[in-house]
Amino acid sequence: MTKSRSNNVVSIKKAVKADTGSAREKIIDALVALITEQGFVAATNRRVAEWAEVSQSTVQYHFSTKARMFEAVLQRCHAEFLQLVDNDALLSGRLEARANLFVVLSWRHYQSALYLATIEILMATRSQREIVTLTQLTDHQAVEQRQRIREIFPECQLDDRALAEVLTSTHVFLTGLTVETILEPKLVNIGGYLRRCTRAMVVMLKTPV
Amino acid sequence: MTKSRSNNVVSIKKAVKADTGSAREKIIDALVALITEQGFVAATNRRVAEWAEVSQSTVQYHFSTKARMFEAVLQRCHAEFLQLVDNDALLSGRLEARANLFVVLSWRHYQSALYLATIEILMATRSQREIVTLTQLTDHQAVEQRQRIREIFPECQLDDRALAEVLTSTHVFLTGLTVETILEPKLVNIGGYLRRCTRAMVVMLKTPV
Repeated sequence: MTKSRSNNVVSIKKAVKADTGSAREKIIDALVALITEQGFVAATNRRVAEWAEVSQSTVQYHFSTKARMFEAVLQRCHAEFLQLVDNDALLSGRLEARANLFVVLSWRHYQSALYLATIEILMATRSQREIVTLTQLTDHQAVEQRQRIREIFPECQLDDRALAEVLTSTHVFLTGLTVETILEPKLVNIGGYLRRCTRAMVVMLKTPV
Repeated sequence: MTKSRSNNVVSIKKAVKADTGSAREKIIDALVALITEQGFVAATNRRVAEWAEVSQSTVQYHFSTKARMFEAVLQRCHAEFLQLVDNDALLSGRLEARANLFVVLSWRHYQSALYLATIEILMATRSQREIVTLTQLTDHQAVEQRQRIREIFPECQLDDRALAEVLTSTHVFLTGLTVETILEPKLVNIGGYLRRCTRAMVVMLKTPV
């Protein structure tokens, strides 16, 4: 009987933990959906709680400040990008083919509601942001991305700084293209811009600057 | 006496017209300043009127809807860009030097509060926007920009569509770099990214794709 009770305690704890985890994820989902449909303006604690179907105190429990909630979106955005480029197809074939697939997969990520919400958060909080925290976050992200890129392009001889610049250049171009497609939804020849981006990436991977 | 009165009427009309013009400009100034300091969230009609030191009905008189006010920011952004590249120094020297100056001047524009406010407006209104109006605006802008670029690079043999793609690629890269410097204010080697952008522009101007 003691054993059974103890088991129950364990399973209850487990269930609570799982629920806690999913509440946190639901809050992030709600925040992204809210920003996508109604803009950053709409992302009040009350509405996030409503959309996530949790109480406002649950939101407060998981995210002591709004800045923490926004950081969670940035972190998830980063995690999803790493997951997207964790693709065996990126590990074989010619350099050009791998670079092309890398750009195409990245572009898919940049078109997601999550990435658009991330840009909107960055723009909206640019004067109020706690810069140090976000910078630490991006330093860590930069290291992880560089490791992944070294796995994908093992022939690349660039040092860390030059490799980081290749990644940043590619990221910068795709971010700009994302903003441009919002201004100009009829933008023609997206494929052409992605090919330019791929070619530039190949040139940079081959030639240290 | 009649003459004098008529003169007065003219000068009063002129003064009112000037005031009207400046109220409109003051409202746009206020909107940009408000977005810069407090974010898009803060851009209510009431606060814009306060910051512009005009009445709310004056705001309403000049901008029947918020969308009109946002379009005015985009239009001013475009006009300032054209003014910035209306620079005699862009009309002489080697192609590489002209491209370099074009990128440097453009970058100055992209770093302005006006351009940052423009990106923030685009991101914040992406689901609610009256797309047709903005697209017409950008079609018109594209034509003006292409004319200016033909004056700067008369040796360029590209057709309109290819030339538009060169401009868009350059714009896309600089927009992305702008967003990146907001995420990463310590971003090193901005000069290096601008040189990459210039080199890509030179290659595109010389080689039809």
